[in-house]
Amino acid sequence: MALIVQKYGGTSVGSVERIQAVAEKIKGWRARGHDLVVVVSAMSGETNRLTALAREIDPRCAGRELDVLLSTGEQVTIALLAMALGQIDCPAISFTGSQVKIQTDSTHNKARIRQVDDHRIHSELEAGKVVIVAGFQGVDDAGAITTLGRGGSDTTAVALAAALKADECQIYTDVDGVYTTDPRVVANARRLERITFEEMLEMASLGSKVLQIRSVEFAGKYDVPLRVLSSFEEGVGTLITQEEEDVEQARISGIAFNRDEAQLTVTHVPDRPGIAYKLLGPVSDANIEIDMIVQNVGADGTTDFTFTVNRNDYQNALEALQTATSEIGGEVSGRDDIVKLSLVGVGMRSHAGIASKMFRILADEGINILMISTSEIKISVVIDEKYLELGVRALHEGFNLASEEAA
Amino acid sequence: MALIVQKYGGTSVGSVERIQAVAEKIKGWRARGHDLVVVVSAMSGETNRLTALAREIDPRCAGRELDVLLSTGEQVTIALLAMALGQIDCPAISFTGSQVKIQTDSTHNKARIRQVDDHRIHSELEAGKVVIVAGFQGVDDAGAITTLGRGGSDTTAVALAAALKADECQIYTDVDGVYTTDPRVVANARRLERITFEEMLEMASLGSKVLQIRSVEFAGKYDVPLRVLSSFEEGVGTLITQEEEDVEQARISGIAFNRDEAQLTVTHVPDRPGIAYKLLGPVSDANIEIDMIVQNVGADGTTDFTFTVNRNDYQNALEALQTATSEIGGEVSGRDDIVKLSLVGVGMRSHAGIASKMFRILADEGINILMISTSEIKISVVIDEKYLELGVRALHEGFNLASEEAA
Repeated sequence: MALIVQKYGGTSVGSVERIQAVAEKIKGWRARGHDLVVVVSAMSGETNRLTALAREIDPRCAGRELDVLLSTGEQVTIALLAMALGQIDCPAISFTGSQVKIQTDSTHNKARIRQVDDHRIHSELEAGKVVIVAGFQGVDDAGAITTLGRGGSDTTAVALAAALKADECQIYTDVDGVYTTDPRVVANARRLERITFEEMLEMASLGSKVLQIRSVEFAGKYDVPLRVLSSFEEGVGTLITQEEEDVEQARISGIAFNRDEAQLTVTHVPDRPGIAYKLLGPVSDANIEIDMIVQNVGADGTTDFTFTVNRNDYQNALEALQTATSEIGGEVSGRDDIVKLSLVGVGMRSHAGIASKMFRILADEGINILMISTSEIKISVVIDEKYLELGVRALHEGFNLASEEAA
Repeated sequence: MALIVQKYGGTSVGSVERIQAVAEKIKGWRARGHDLVVVVSAMSGETNRLTALAREIDPRCAGRELDVLLSTGEQVTIALLAMALGQIDCPAISFTGSQVKIQTDSTHNKARIRQVDDHRIHSELEAGKVVIVAGFQGVDDAGAITTLGRGGSDTTAVALAAALKADECQIYTDVDGVYTTDPRVVANARRLERITFEEMLEMASLGSKVLQIRSVEFAGKYDVPLRVLSSFEEGVGTLITQEEEDVEQARISGIAFNRDEAQLTVTHVPDRPGIAYKLLGPVSDANIEIDMIVQNVGADGTTDFTFTVNRNDYQNALEALQTATSEIGGEVSGRDDIVKLSLVGVGMRSHAGIASKMFRILADEGINILMISTSEIKISVVIDEKYLELGVRALHEGFNLASEEAA
């Protein structure tokens, strides 16, 4: 007997048949005596269809009316799911973000949830109903419809779970959990039983796109146990929680990687205060997000910078840097055939030697490391794109990640 | 400088191009200094698409969740229209039925409007905006989304016009007004400049399907001047108002007709109290709506009934009657190749001789009248289907309806 919040994404509710399958799944949970609050996304393709309509009218469509438009996507799904549950004698009631009062700020298209009114949901649960809530949407103080931005349905689910003090928040996706690395690269990649919020954040932001980052942050902040599992297969998925007391071993959770990287280097920059700002200012002015940054000070009074950006921004970043160096000096070079590869795990904190083991494994394969960056629970290296699969497989093997007793 | 409520139906907003055309039209009215509240339907085809989705899940879908689903149709249109107006520098803001508080009862799928909160609309109008409201939908006391049933957007427009005390409620359709009869049958059928609410009700219910009957009743009740006009052509359309004091002439407004009729006759029914109920009870129990009813008492202690039903209900009605007469006696016959043809006009009230003129015109053409029924402002006759066009043309000519001075 638990209170569970479940979230089904667009693919999971992408057709009438799939909605009916989700209804059966929900009924199964009900039959085991649980109270259920279900958050759903728009049917896959629907948000794109609506956006295309809006763009025909206004290519840069945004703001209040876009939210009025897009929020219809989830509204269709909640109604259909409530009907499907009704058809199999599982009483259900649907609510839009406005109805259940998912109160947000007024930042249209990427609003932030401020508060959730749990009163109505509790009374419907007490009446024995499954409560279905439209994901991705809310309402501001003036009663205007807002949306939370792409992937916002995960955030809705976590916010509801926090407000309702749910026992667990289950995110159903098209994968059956979080893996030690991408199974398409490493055949014996293993599904993790548990992972910490921090590790999940590193895994997610590094390209293992299972959950929306904001929802993981939110779950961590409010200590909502989050479970990722498959809509299409049975299984317990991966539980994302706070770090456990007994995680004393040097745990490595997994290997994340990101192909969409490009690297830029500026050498022989005069080393004086404010130089980093002068160099990188034009890049961020061009709305280019910088990922890793490394600086080395040379002996001749100059300094070298290397950093990475998304591969799509490579040309623009190159131009911005050339403008900057024409004023302050320095030489710009770069390449867009590199990738980032990261080892993630809370175990790194307390156990020395993981970095050196990582570098040795890569060296043994003849893989040259172009750049290194570390944080408390991850080590990232930039390498030649052509070595990506080799590097990931070597590390997965070297750290014995396919086994439950990974070190 | 007037306050005008406009309503655009599904065909008028059936594509992005048409929505843009409607936006231009609205901008034109604004430029002439008017305050505008615009009610829109779902884009044509959208309600059917949504209904089909629901029926895949529940063939008899109805109730609360159907309203959650269908109301998304208009919500899409209000957002797109607001964007289209924004694009041509005509500030606009959209509201769903819930947001503007179109308060209804809780009869899902065919709710009745109880009250409209005009506060928010007035303040947006004062701020110089065009206010766009989703037709067809409202909200009940518990905050649930309701819909008003097919054609409900007309009712929304009239209710808003009444609440806002608008100077005129304009219903834009794909015809340019109300005609003396169907122009496809009578080539010189004339668009009426004015018609009374009562006449319009008779015309509408008899098959001249321009406006939803309930919206005309509503407009009459609250004395909202209603104008029917074309979305696609310029023109003043037809104004529907209260009867004017100076309508002293024997005015005939038009000729309505309905092809979907069938006639049933029961003869030799024992004439005793309660017999009509015993006979017709089984018919209405079968959910068959009876239109005209005529009873003749014979000399032999028996009585004859003749009545009409929708042609789709003919077989069911026949069976229901056979069941009834097997108990109480009588013989059932019927035919489904008949039509109803009606002369409508407030002038009938004060001028005798219109009925006899009508019957003479039909007789002159050799058209046999099978059944007659009259009300204060209309005379309906049932005739052979094959004489429909001939009868309509003869009456249109005989009553000189193509001319402004119709008698």
